[in-house]
Amino acid sequence: MDLGRGEGRRGVGANREDEKQKGQENTALRTCKQSTLADVRAPCYSSEHPCIGATTELARKAALRPQSDLCGTVCPSSRSQRRCCHIFSGAVSPAVMGLDQCVVLAACTAVEPVLKLSPVDPCMNSETADAIIRKALTEEKRVSTKTSAADLVTETDHLVEDLIISELRERFPSHRFIAEEAAASGAKCVLTHNPTWIIDPIDGTCNFVHRFPTVAVSIGFAVRQELEFGVIYHCTEERLYTGRRGGGAFCNGQRLRVSGETDLSKALVLTEIGPKRDPATLKLFLSNMERLLHAKAHGVRVIGSSTLALCHLASGAADAYYQFGLHCWDLAAATVIIREAGGIVIDTSGGPLDLMACRVVAASTREMAMLIAQALQTINYGRDDEK
Amino acid sequence: MDLGRGEGRRGVGANREDEKQKGQENTALRTCKQSTLADVRAPCYSSEHPCIGATTELARKAALRPQSDLCGTVCPSSRSQRRCCHIFSGAVSPAVMGLDQCVVLAACTAVEPVLKLSPVDPCMNSETADAIIRKALTEEKRVSTKTSAADLVTETDHLVEDLIISELRERFPSHRFIAEEAAASGAKCVLTHNPTWIIDPIDGTCNFVHRFPTVAVSIGFAVRQELEFGVIYHCTEERLYTGRRGGGAFCNGQRLRVSGETDLSKALVLTEIGPKRDPATLKLFLSNMERLLHAKAHGVRVIGSSTLALCHLASGAADAYYQFGLHCWDLAAATVIIREAGGIVIDTSGGPLDLMACRVVAASTREMAMLIAQALQTINYGRDDEK
Repeated sequence: MDLGRGEGRRGVGANREDEKQKGQENTALRTCKQSTLADVRAPCYSSEHPCIGATTELARKAALRPQSDLCGTVCPSSRSQRRCCHIFSGAVSPAVMGLDQCVVLAACTAVEPVLKLSPVDPCMNSETADAIIRKALTEEKRVSTKTSAADLVTETDHLVEDLIISELRERFPSHRFIAEEAAASGAKCVLTHNPTWIIDPIDGTCNFVHRFPTVAVSIGFAVRQELEFGVIYHCTEERLYTGRRGGGAFCNGQRLRVSGETDLSKALVLTEIGPKRDPATLKLFLSNMERLLHAKAHGVRVIGSSTLALCHLASGAADAYYQFGLHCWDLAAATVIIREAGGIVIDTSGGPLDLMACRVVAASTREMAMLIAQALQTINYGRDDEK
Repeated sequence: MDLGRGEGRRGVGANREDEKQKGQENTALRTCKQSTLADVRAPCYSSEHPCIGATTELARKAALRPQSDLCGTVCPSSRSQRRCCHIFSGAVSPAVMGLDQCVVLAACTAVEPVLKLSPVDPCMNSETADAIIRKALTEEKRVSTKTSAADLVTETDHLVEDLIISELRERFPSHRFIAEEAAASGAKCVLTHNPTWIIDPIDGTCNFVHRFPTVAVSIGFAVRQELEFGVIYHCTEERLYTGRRGGGAFCNGQRLRVSGETDLSKALVLTEIGPKRDPATLKLFLSNMERLLHAKAHGVRVIGSSTLALCHLASGAADAYYQFGLHCWDLAAATVIIREAGGIVIDTSGGPLDLMACRVVAASTREMAMLIAQALQTINYGRDDEK
């Protein structure tokens, strides 16, 4: 969905396109291009912690802040050990960054504190996506259905989505948002050239409802329709997967690498059933699984979370993933993470990934991806941008 | 397998039926029946730590040791925080125990230190099942196949099985062992009335080979063909699931309870594919999955470890499990844990569980178990005790 003013649910799904503010923000960002290496290395901590800094100043501050602060060393402003932005690892020097890169850098800085609280961090309040999900996991839930009896949603999905969007919009009022529950409420999914956050507040809602501990928050970020970074947080296991275009992929600071497997008969393949459960769709789903098992894949796993399955692929713990019926918010963050871990993400036709096509093959190598794509029969789930 | 003298692989799979020693052990155990409550409460720490105490004395020592030591308080003999036997929680008083219960109590005490090292424990060396598996997870593995190209085994499976059996046999020379890799080497699986350990050194070997982190060690214990306790250790997540007949089921000390769900259309159902991959078996496997999805189960998950899937059921995170093609070592420990968590474990025919029949339905309620059993078509995997 490309949320325009007033389209969003409870006022948080809407983009407030305040052109004046946007102009100010862009002016601030352009200063990045003029900064020298000496400027970049100079301390520039404000009395306000950078992670919760003033919106229009954030990009410039983030771009000018020393890398050491962004990667986990002690931050003088809070006197606490911070690991506020793993996705900065391997980032280019702010001194040579363009405008888009400054936007990405600022966005990177803002996202992690919304997901989870640092171990000791007096700068943030305790309302994070992580805190909300963990609390709700232990409680009874009111469950509603969406497209089918197996397509579930809870109050917590809405709460987490609202929190993420409102926190990010406060910092970046000109940015756009595509988010699962707003889309389910009828908002259009259109990926424009504008900086866009693509959010799945709880991936694995069915697992979440059952307290099955394979549940994640996924946030991707695109500029000019290019996926720039992704963050996936596996709450119950406290694993933060991050990937930034050109900057590598990490899990809790450890570099991720795909397995490199090319042989389908030695592969562990992951998939998900998808929300449609009509007999024809189920036949196709099971037929695809049968084809891969006939091809002697070591095993097929179904864990109930597309994003975490894709993270397993990125970490080398699986060799391929395919699915029909997933959405752009399941794919956006994971696509960056897999690509930065050395893997391949393509369309089930074997062509380039179409983020809005509700289908994907991801694999550790192109050979493996093509073998999987050739084995699959198509299941039509329509497109995210035509709903 | 009912391993007789000299039948075991590398000398560790064999039972040394030393009748003289057995007689001495039984004499020692019988003293339990005469102990008073005063005896039980009196401290009885030896210079040797109870967990690695002399074999013939162990049962008596374990029976007489105060419950507080066995459930995680500071142990004067090691001055370390010990949580050496969660499966004692809720155990009957040693003062009123019979011979079999003394055997069970002694066996309970011995098993956890073989699985994993306590955080600070000078009494144990570092060779535990956990340590071997964690180290091997990061290394390249030499993989062999057993009954099919998807039925994998590694050196680590053998190493862990050897470690567990040799450590336990040293303490209990008269006990019998049924273990996965010894069975694969041709040892017979026969459950006699003798105290018997039923061991899966690595459940989820295919996952283990791929470094997919759903891997567990499973150890069950039976006396007079009755399953008495089970311990399942999820190494990478450091979760120890325990269940003792009449004593409850726990995960890292937290009581486990099944969900209590009776409605299949609200159920999360777990299963595994099984090792056979011939077209007829695959058709039946997929047909069974289709039947459950047609019955509108919320979801079906395939995580690659029967024992951990069954632990999810015990913890209330799933509502049912079924499988054809699993073995007694996949079921023994989990059966106790599920039953003690309030769940049901039956045969796929709807009748009582047959541990050797290579098939199972487990569920949070009898209603759910019967619904699943009625939906399934049988896949014939033979019997463990006829191979």
